[in-house]
Amino acid sequence: MRAGIDLGGTKIQAVVVDERSKVTGESRQPTPTAGGPAAVISQMADTMSEAAEAAGVETARLRGIGVGSPGAVDARAGTVAEARNLSDWDTPFPMAAALSELLGSPVYIGNDVSVAVHAEYELGAAKEADSLLGVFWGTGVGGGIIFDGKMWEGRGAAGEIGHVVVKRGGRRCTCGRRGCMEAYAGRGAMEIRARTLVDRGEKTELFEIMEKRGRSRLQSGIWERALKREDPMAVHLIDGAIKALGAGIASAVNLLDVEMVVIGGGLGTRLGEPYVKRIESAMMPHLFVDDRPPAVLPVALGDLGGAIGAALLVPKAKKRPPRKPRAASAR
Amino acid sequence: MRAGIDLGGTKIQAVVVDERSKVTGESRQPTPTAGGPAAVISQMADTMSEAAEAAGVETARLRGIGVGSPGAVDARAGTVAEARNLSDWDTPFPMAAALSELLGSPVYIGNDVSVAVHAEYELGAAKEADSLLGVFWGTGVGGGIIFDGKMWEGRGAAGEIGHVVVKRGGRRCTCGRRGCMEAYAGRGAMEIRARTLVDRGEKTELFEIMEKRGRSRLQSGIWERALKREDPMAVHLIDGAIKALGAGIASAVNLLDVEMVVIGGGLGTRLGEPYVKRIESAMMPHLFVDDRPPAVLPVALGDLGGAIGAALLVPKAKKRPPRKPRAASAR
Repeated sequence: MRAGIDLGGTKIQAVVVDERSKVTGESRQPTPTAGGPAAVISQMADTMSEAAEAAGVETARLRGIGVGSPGAVDARAGTVAEARNLSDWDTPFPMAAALSELLGSPVYIGNDVSVAVHAEYELGAAKEADSLLGVFWGTGVGGGIIFDGKMWEGRGAAGEIGHVVVKRGGRRCTCGRRGCMEAYAGRGAMEIRARTLVDRGEKTELFEIMEKRGRSRLQSGIWERALKREDPMAVHLIDGAIKALGAGIASAVNLLDVEMVVIGGGLGTRLGEPYVKRIESAMMPHLFVDDRPPAVLPVALGDLGGAIGAALLVPKAKKRPPRKPRAASAR
Repeated sequence: MRAGIDLGGTKIQAVVVDERSKVTGESRQPTPTAGGPAAVISQMADTMSEAAEAAGVETARLRGIGVGSPGAVDARAGTVAEARNLSDWDTPFPMAAALSELLGSPVYIGNDVSVAVHAEYELGAAKEADSLLGVFWGTGVGGGIIFDGKMWEGRGAAGEIGHVVVKRGGRRCTCGRRGCMEAYAGRGAMEIRARTLVDRGEKTELFEIMEKRGRSRLQSGIWERALKREDPMAVHLIDGAIKALGAGIASAVNLLDVEMVVIGGGLGTRLGEPYVKRIESAMMPHLFVDDRPPAVLPVALGDLGGAIGAALLVPKAKKRPPRKPRAASAR
């Protein structure tokens, strides 16, 4: 059995899977917001132990544990740096070694978006495709690209579709630049925009819903509720996000001519098929070859895709080399 | 010896090269503006014969002739369709068979931009790079991508960097869409824009220079002269083109994280290094990973790159499979 952990800014998702990647145990815990890498690693180990218990296996008996991590992942060294959504995580931390020490199994790490795209390619919506663009629409907008069955990582930072320019001189992005797709479509950027509009006296139920649910941020479920109530600000901001996603994804398709686009992430998964269809429609006016657009589909593995994809980092048989996305054992 | 033909909307360039791709003979003729495919093929054969004569070889003794063609190229079938810059060339025409019949050698066809990018990769500015984005700045703006040493063609239409959106809702492009990079940077679009500005009463020397040189279109040399005279409209439009190229190429780099960008095409080659440096600077504000930007260089093979790249379509030894970009013999 193999296992996978999806390390997010708000939650840690762990799964144990069998030889056919079927989930046999899972667990989810919140990501610690303080205590730095040590606290995060400890919580990851705890979440993994729970998932293993649910699957009826000891963690030391697992063939290996894969981790999909944010930040700058060095798979060979087993380290993660610059994970800005995580507590005090700037300099490289030896995640693979630390986690392996706690759980007694080899640990393989990869980029969070890459492993989720890989999972959709191997097991999910893109099983039949040879080339794929994965778009993960959440706090930010991440992307992953598969050409001829192989993940393309460039010099380590490919896939930053959130920072494709859709409006030169346009809105300021959370990255500091102007006109990025994420400046219009990222949940983080939309929240900043909503707060600005409220300060200007515009009305919305977004923050009331947030408070009623005991949250401090506009998470995907809050946007979903506000849209259901036809809250004008939520509708307006999501409309803008969809237009930006349409232009940015169409630009990528004009450049790459992939067979398929899959859309996931917190907002993508929560809003689901009707909104994926709207993104597809928003792409059409910008597609250069518009008589054979790529298939545009929601992710098939949902919230567990990242963790299942992380488990794919673990080699199936010990003698085979690790599969792409590149992974390295901590042992 | 191998040979190559670069078929452009205004000129046909033919070369004969030796085993090391050194040019041993060349010829250039204008592209016929009437007479349809038959007239174009006949002129291509004539240009090729001249180049062969200059190299001291009969065309029937060549190992093969490669052609870099505009339009929709079907390399396996040897046909070209929808070459809109060429006279009456819409339905598929058997270019490879027709040319082979006239010249007595096998003919291999490929996409014009792809073969030029391939030439820069094999022999030119990108010899040391593993991944490359080629940008051809001329009447339109074309692109070609090489990943891990292989040309990526997608489903046949990858590389349309000219139609990456840089300003949603922006200027109308010659393709009919809005806000494409080419709407600001393409020589065709800039000429339309210049005519509009003149109609509005703005002053420029662009059209005087054009008439003095006996031309009917604003070719690259005319832009170069106007820039040297500091013609305000030419300076303004080229500034806008550079900003658009900066945003669009940076978007592609954010997505692909390639090692190198090479810039060619009629305008790119004519304006050369100082303008390539300006495009590089215009990319910087939009690069997501800006501490290690890709190298940005002018093409090294200049005007002959397309024809030399076309010659690379011809297999070196008869028993080897054709090299990428995919090519098919007409025989």
